[in-house]
Amino acid sequence: MNTNTHTPTTAAPTQANNTSQSQNTMRLEHDCIGTKQVPDSVYWGIHTQRAIENFPVSGITDGEHPVMIQAFATIKRACALANHDLGLLTEQQAQAITTACQEIEQGKLLDQFPIDVLQGGAGTSLNMNMNEVIANRALEILNQPRGAYEYIHPNDDVNKSQSTNDTYPAASKLAIIRAIEPSIAECEHLANAFHTLADKHIEDITIGRTQLQDAVPMTFGQEFHAFATMLKSDIAMLRAVIPHLCTLNLGATAIGTGICADLRFRKEATQQLARITQLPIRAASDPVAAVTDMSSYMHTADALQTLAMHLKKAADDLRLLNSGPASGFGELTVPARQAGSSIMPAKVNPVIPECVNQCCFMTFGMHTTVTWACSEGQLQLNAFDPVIVHTILQSIDMLTRAMSIFRTHCVEGITVHRDIGEQHAQMSPAIATALNPYIGYEEASAIAKQAAAQRKSVRNIAAESTNLSSQELDNILDPIALSRGLGQTCREHQES
Amino acid sequence: MNTNTHTPTTAAPTQANNTSQSQNTMRLEHDCIGTKQVPDSVYWGIHTQRAIENFPVSGITDGEHPVMIQAFATIKRACALANHDLGLLTEQQAQAITTACQEIEQGKLLDQFPIDVLQGGAGTSLNMNMNEVIANRALEILNQPRGAYEYIHPNDDVNKSQSTNDTYPAASKLAIIRAIEPSIAECEHLANAFHTLADKHIEDITIGRTQLQDAVPMTFGQEFHAFATMLKSDIAMLRAVIPHLCTLNLGATAIGTGICADLRFRKEATQQLARITQLPIRAASDPVAAVTDMSSYMHTADALQTLAMHLKKAADDLRLLNSGPASGFGELTVPARQAGSSIMPAKVNPVIPECVNQCCFMTFGMHTTVTWACSEGQLQLNAFDPVIVHTILQSIDMLTRAMSIFRTHCVEGITVHRDIGEQHAQMSPAIATALNPYIGYEEASAIAKQAAAQRKSVRNIAAESTNLSSQELDNILDPIALSRGLGQTCREHQES
Amino acid sequence: MNTNTHTPTTAAPTQANNTSQSQNTMRLEHDCIGTKQVPDSVYWGIHTQRAIENFPVSGITDGEHPVMIQAFATIKRACALANHDLGLLTEQQAQAITTACQEIEQGKLLDQFPIDVLQGGAGTSLNMNMNEVIANRALEILNQPRGAYEYIHPNDDVNKSQSTNDTYPAASKLAIIRAIEPSIAECEHLANAFHTLADKHIEDITIGRTQLQDAVPMTFGQEFHAFATMLKSDIAMLRAVIPHLCTLNLGATAIGTGICADLRFRKEATQQLARITQLPIRAASDPVAAVTDMSSYMHTADALQTLAMHLKKAADDLRLLNSGPASGFGELTVPARQAGSSIMPAKVNPVIPECVNQCCFMTFGMHTTVTWACSEGQLQLNAFDPVIVHTILQSIDMLTRAMSIFRTHCVEGITVHRDIGEQHAQMSPAIATALNPYIGYEEASAIAKQAAAQRKSVRNIAAESTNLSSQELDNILDPIALSRGLGQTCREHQES
Amino acid sequence: MNTNTHTPTTAAPTQANNTSQSQNTMRLEHDCIGTKQVPDSVYWGIHTQRAIENFPVSGITDGEHPVMIQAFATIKRACALANHDLGLLTEQQAQAITTACQEIEQGKLLDQFPIDVLQGGAGTSLNMNMNEVIANRALEILNQPRGAYEYIHPNDDVNKSQSTNDTYPAASKLAIIRAIEPSIAECEHLANAFHTLADKHIEDITIGRTQLQDAVPMTFGQEFHAFATMLKSDIAMLRAVIPHLCTLNLGATAIGTGICADLRFRKEATQQLARITQLPIRAASDPVAAVTDMSSYMHTADALQTLAMHLKKAADDLRLLNSGPASGFGELTVPARQAGSSIMPAKVNPVIPECVNQCCFMTFGMHTTVTWACSEGQLQLNAFDPVIVHTILQSIDMLTRAMSIFRTHCVEGITVHRDIGEQHAQMSPAIATALNPYIGYEEASAIAKQAAAQRKSVRNIAAESTNLSSQELDNILDPIALSRGLGQTCREHQES
Repeated sequence: MNTNTHTPTTAAPTQANNTSQSQNTMRLEHDCIGTKQVPDSVYWGIHTQRAIENFPVSGITDGEHPVMIQAFATIKRACALANHDLGLLTEQQAQAITTACQEIEQGKLLDQFPIDVLQGGAGTSLNMNMNEVIANRALEILNQPRGAYEYIHPNDDVNKSQSTNDTYPAASKLAIIRAIEPSIAECEHLANAFHTLADKHIEDITIGRTQLQDAVPMTFGQEFHAFATMLKSDIAMLRAVIPHLCTLNLGATAIGTGICADLRFRKEATQQLARITQLPIRAASDPVAAVTDMSSYMHTADALQTLAMHLKKAADDLRLLNSGPASGFGELTVPARQAGSSIMPAKVNPVIPECVNQCCFMTFGMHTTVTWACSEGQLQLNAFDPVIVHTILQSIDMLTRAMSIFRTHCVEGITVHRDIGEQHAQMSPAIATALNPYIGYEEASAIAKQAAAQRKSVRNIAAESTNLSSQELDNILDPIALSRGLGQTCREHQES
Repeated sequence: MNTNTHTPTTAAPTQANNTSQSQNTMRLEHDCIGTKQVPDSVYWGIHTQRAIENFPVSGITDGEHPVMIQAFATIKRACALANHDLGLLTEQQAQAITTACQEIEQGKLLDQFPIDVLQGGAGTSLNMNMNEVIANRALEILNQPRGAYEYIHPNDDVNKSQSTNDTYPAASKLAIIRAIEPSIAECEHLANAFHTLADKHIEDITIGRTQLQDAVPMTFGQEFHAFATMLKSDIAMLRAVIPHLCTLNLGATAIGTGICADLRFRKEATQQLARITQLPIRAASDPVAAVTDMSSYMHTADALQTLAMHLKKAADDLRLLNSGPASGFGELTVPARQAGSSIMPAKVNPVIPECVNQCCFMTFGMHTTVTWACSEGQLQLNAFDPVIVHTILQSIDMLTRAMSIFRTHCVEGITVHRDIGEQHAQMSPAIATALNPYIGYEEASAIAKQAAAQRKSVRNIAAESTNLSSQELDNILDPIALSRGLGQTCREHQES
Repeated sequence: MNTNTHTPTTAAPTQANNTSQSQNTMRLEHDCIGTKQVPDSVYWGIHTQRAIENFPVSGITDGEHPVMIQAFATIKRACALANHDLGLLTEQQAQAITTACQEIEQGKLLDQFPIDVLQGGAGTSLNMNMNEVIANRALEILNQPRGAYEYIHPNDDVNKSQSTNDTYPAASKLAIIRAIEPSIAECEHLANAFHTLADKHIEDITIGRTQLQDAVPMTFGQEFHAFATMLKSDIAMLRAVIPHLCTLNLGATAIGTGICADLRFRKEATQQLARITQLPIRAASDPVAAVTDMSSYMHTADALQTLAMHLKKAADDLRLLNSGPASGFGELTVPARQAGSSIMPAKVNPVIPECVNQCCFMTFGMHTTVTWACSEGQLQLNAFDPVIVHTILQSIDMLTRAMSIFRTHCVEGITVHRDIGEQHAQMSPAIATALNPYIGYEEASAIAKQAAAQRKSVRNIAAESTNLSSQELDNILDPIALSRGLGQTCREHQES
Repeated sequence: MNTNTHTPTTAAPTQANNTSQSQNTMRLEHDCIGTKQVPDSVYWGIHTQRAIENFPVSGITDGEHPVMIQAFATIKRACALANHDLGLLTEQQAQAITTACQEIEQGKLLDQFPIDVLQGGAGTSLNMNMNEVIANRALEILNQPRGAYEYIHPNDDVNKSQSTNDTYPAASKLAIIRAIEPSIAECEHLANAFHTLADKHIEDITIGRTQLQDAVPMTFGQEFHAFATMLKSDIAMLRAVIPHLCTLNLGATAIGTGICADLRFRKEATQQLARITQLPIRAASDPVAAVTDMSSYMHTADALQTLAMHLKKAADDLRLLNSGPASGFGELTVPARQAGSSIMPAKVNPVIPECVNQCCFMTFGMHTTVTWACSEGQLQLNAFDPVIVHTILQSIDMLTRAMSIFRTHCVEGITVHRDIGEQHAQMSPAIATALNPYIGYEEASAIAKQAAAQRKSVRNIAAESTNLSSQELDNILDPIALSRGLGQTCREHQES
């Protein structure tokens, strides 16, 4: 059945491109389009060879997303085990295939996945690349030459009971889950860093601002704690995406009808994968819908965008509070990481928050890309999985690294200027708010207005123009008390 | 304390603008900026009067979102009850205020909310508009003239223990929850309509297409069922947003520190609101974070965008399947709703799906607006609540109506062309997929290629070129069997 | 030929809905779908009647964009004149049709355009609504009853040589051009307001900030002048869009092949329109491309988005410079337009810039909507013109109004705090930049660093640690001289 | 003045990292933050060293955009020449600096630019990296050791009269101009390929479709020509961006006031750059505005998005027309580039258009990123240049490559199915449009409706039900004549 032709029979290399001799040796493979020479030094076959030439657009290869390659190998292994359980692969075939998969899962052979990440074809190229590499590595394990597909065939054996339309999304979702894990960890570290900073400054008074106007007193601790709270909600949100990503469609094959797949395969493969990954993998309830429904990707992109929004919030606020040194808000100083200007001597800029801001803008753009790609499916398939998966993985990696430098290069080294915070709190006309319950909003307004106009403190004006005693004013206008309204410290806040 | 001046003391009108006399009567109100004439015929006061003049940008008034006005009145009523329980309002004050609130909750006085929805000021104008209307209506109930704020003051009494920064988002979120309810109902109706259509065509064969290329057989039932499945996931998603929207910040006042609010108010007001609305309202755990964190709005916009994505999917696919009548896919016909062309006689176009498409593009744009507004908060407040709330409410209303016409004017009247579907299924070269397990992918390829080239059916070619008997081929290539791989009918699919 | 049936023959009303009697009178019209009752009191016909029922999604009618209705009537008039010139309409028909068109162009009959702006059908409904209203009003002018289409037919006469696919975009583009004009005027007014403010403060020193860090001195005049410069570039950009919008496709009819149109019509109609509008209207060189190419809309949306970006820049900066009053940048005060808070007495917020910000977010969202709609055309038509035109017109109107209030309610009333600006300039460590040419970047760094650390001025430190004389330092560090490097005043800057 | 310390005095290497010895040798550099070891094997200095550690977020280095590195070196050379002309650099310094620049302009030393492209700091890091590499290479040319900045100083000499805020955008814009050039060329090639295809099929009839419904006849030539026309408008649009990009701000230094720069420098440097680049470089008229105004980037991103929109249009339409083979539109076949499915034998998919689609989605996302970054400047600087420039350069490169494969792998190999096109044209009910001028829209409607219902041709029905003779019908319904309304062939279309 197989007509692939090996020119010479060199010893099968265990690493690609390892001898100059093997590089010059070609084997002839064929497919429904025709025939094509493939270097005998590589594990990939004709499909991959064509795809390399078809899509040189981004310059980024599938192999540059190791988490995707490894996840795909995991999917292939689960399927091979299921096929073997159902008697559809021989012991020997299953053994060789699963061994090849495990090698890839361990990070080997990444250079065997050279196709551009923006490949057309809904992921068929990476699936076939995977099928070919696994087949040829399995053949090697069985001491067969590359291309001897009569023993192990990329389509008939490695891809048995599968199609791109079920395995590629399964691999993508597993890859995203695995990429999210370090992201959650880094988000937790960053939240904790803000929490630690908050605890340190839980009693340090500063001014709250609404609409960039001086408002009422609060503590630095409350300000930093809010960043931690938002990041913790992001962790919950990222975790909430995982069940969506665990709903897979193995066994549904081409369009969700399960053509070519043994009826028992869906359950078998799903269980094998759950066992291997220790994740709550389950089969989609409507396999036809599952082929075209991209909403689990969209949920992921949404969660990443909200995370980016919160990171932007923290970065923006820190840049504002760090403004100065002499003529800005000046309430804190972020660590000096490098000289800020090529011309202005000793100027130091908040380069780390700025870098974080830029990663957020990238994430917003990536969300747009994912929205487009997810919305452009037609009939029984959305062909744009590859750009979605690439974009999401890139976005997760970038945000994970951004959170890491945000923490280590910025948040952990923030210096708070207690004196300035306190002075700002004292001088805010809005502190007159605290007088409302005693003299009413209208009289308090008159005092606040006068304080602002004369650049005096509200306390001073109130002492002159109300009957409140000095002691009463001290109590009413005590900033630390005012900041504590809803609880002694931020640590005490609980969901009610 | 109050210095507002009534020129004459006309009988307080119970409807605004109701007599020509009262329209000419003005009362003088004052605030921290100065004084201003307000028509005595209206319930609003100086703040509203200024705001009307400040923001004439969109031409849409707050009153055009009745759900927002009504929700805000509910919030005010819950706060008044809480204040009364805590002894901060007299029985008489509380009675008058809550009665005024209830009138607004019932849909009255909508014309008293004339400020532009794109108002600056983080919602202070609508909050003050609400405070002023409630105060003046309550004064009227107490037989006091408008502006007699010494009895009931917009800020000191109606707004007691409150600020815009806690009540405006509370009203917004309650309004969104209430707007989502009919949206969910309409989504359910539409999903059911697709489901009914699916059931009707559960045995009717057609061709599945991947990447717009003929693929393997399926039934119309499976195709329509997939739309229902996606819409049902949207219902779940919309419902999942509600707990986020139920987390409010009453009692946190200006920046989350609770300044001016009795310590017990937070719990009281939250409980009153939960009781009135019968919703699982709860207080945010970190009140400072809650003031600036816009993520519950973002989650809402995300859910709406995913719903729009699914609606677009259905509209796009129906337009494709309806293409023709002679030279397209032609597998179904959507109802003829109007003549399609001013020049091409008898041309009929799929105008309802096109309208749905446009609502989706609007929703995508609205998502962008919400993303921007949610991401541009600074320090202790995001001042852009008004554009967010307006956009989300507009988006929900539009999608709700779009789903309604999609169902009644399109989906419920779809005619399926069984003959064409069946013929398409027969002629697809990809039906050779079913031969894979019997003759392998490579031989099946050769047969499929030949079938496509000769425009013959795969069955015919396979009969000539394989050893499979006629009976075997009938069994292997039976489209209804092929479409059933994963279950007899779509109704049987269950989460495994 | 015409079979429309009038039940009674009441006198044709010249205003719709003007008698209770006529409202109860119906006429029966027919089309390729069937027959339908239409109130005899209205000028519209069966197509409009169906469309009213088909698309109740946004609640906004075509008539709410008068500029679109008027432009469409202008297009119809130009076409009628061209048809008459070519002998395709009788003198009497042409006279009646053009008179009807002129009435609409003058703003009459707006209530006769009741279809939802988000209508499906690529604008056919508005085109037919226009054809029907013009036909029936023309019949009335000829003393014929409504529906007597044998004299003047909506399709055969009013729409002669036309289709929706050429006239609807022509009307849209003319409407956009007309809507842009006041927008340009308002942009010019705003630019001038910034320019006037700049001139007033051309010598007033303040601190420039880069990356929110104190940088080197500049004048308030330079700062405000930059806003004017950006807005002036927007005017140029908006003007640059007009030639694109003047390229129309009249006579190309359905798909650009000109089917049904006299060969001479294209030139005739184009010339008539150019004459009427006094615009450089021309025919597209590739009429088939012109039907589907939405790039002139996209260019418009791009220009609006860049304008919004510049408005956001000005609004953001003013809000920053206005921050305080005690603990922010505090370099200027925007006019107090209303009390800022329901709880914080005498707080005043920059509500006008905030409103402008929100209009910018709306514009960004509208750009997204337009991008989607422009990108989703298929084959010979993009069916999503209606949402594009509605969105662009809405966006222009909103930005025009936003620029107006920005100018009158904010920019014209800005108060600059010269003392604070000067003090900020003195205290900036980055003023040491001016020492670079004398002592080198590294020594200047040491001085700047010391100044920042000791919160002293650079001049003081430099006096102690360099050989520069007091006179030299005064000259080198003179802020007004430093701000003037590239010219005495901003007015002198010229393109080189 | 210089205190950098060389541990040993090894011979200065002319290539980085060239000896294991030099790698172990460190030199100590200092800046305003402190001191730091830098490998003596590299040309960069302390600023670069810090920045490498600061921003490891995207994993992509500045050196991966050679066009940017080379453009920056050109800017530095023009500035050095201007400084020398003004007597601010010695002959020897200028010679060494310009030689170093020219080496970099020729593509050398790319590995010396290792900072992440998403660096914070508004580009200061790349500017300093450039200053340091040029200084150290120039020192080497002068036989001085690296770090001997007393001879040539990165800030005082290489950066003389410059800041990041003027040179970084200048380099960015020059880089974008240079990157656009091949993009325009590739766009032209693609337009020509469509034009050639159009010419080949200028007489081949097919059916036009509006709203995916069969409309009136046209030729394949007209259809393909429209793609060419749109792409040609993109070329014009890309060219129109260049003047914006040629408006630079050299000599304006930090915030546009020109601090530290000789007054004559602006004109000198601008002229030197114009001479070197042979581009119409000019100085911005308002240098303060020019520092913060990002609109020339935005115009570039807009042009790229419109190009992407047109590419998407062509890719989408080709995928539709290629649908089938048996049950779709089937009017053309794109080249078979690879096997389409891992499971469906012989299925071939339009993978190249799909790849193009994905590049368009990436471009749309990149537009979002650029919009965000351009809109978030504050006061005298937008700090987000790096993400903007990276994104635009990436987008241009990707689209350039996408256009190349679109042409060579798809458009040039398209096969048109004349028989199917002709048959589709014959069967379209909408061909009845041609009868309008003879029998009126209403009678034509009846015929078209009957034809569709009976799946007969309009000609057949019209022969039965009108008085038109067979000859008249042949003339009226001749598809080639109908497609020619506005001109014999597409080549004849001219702007009128």
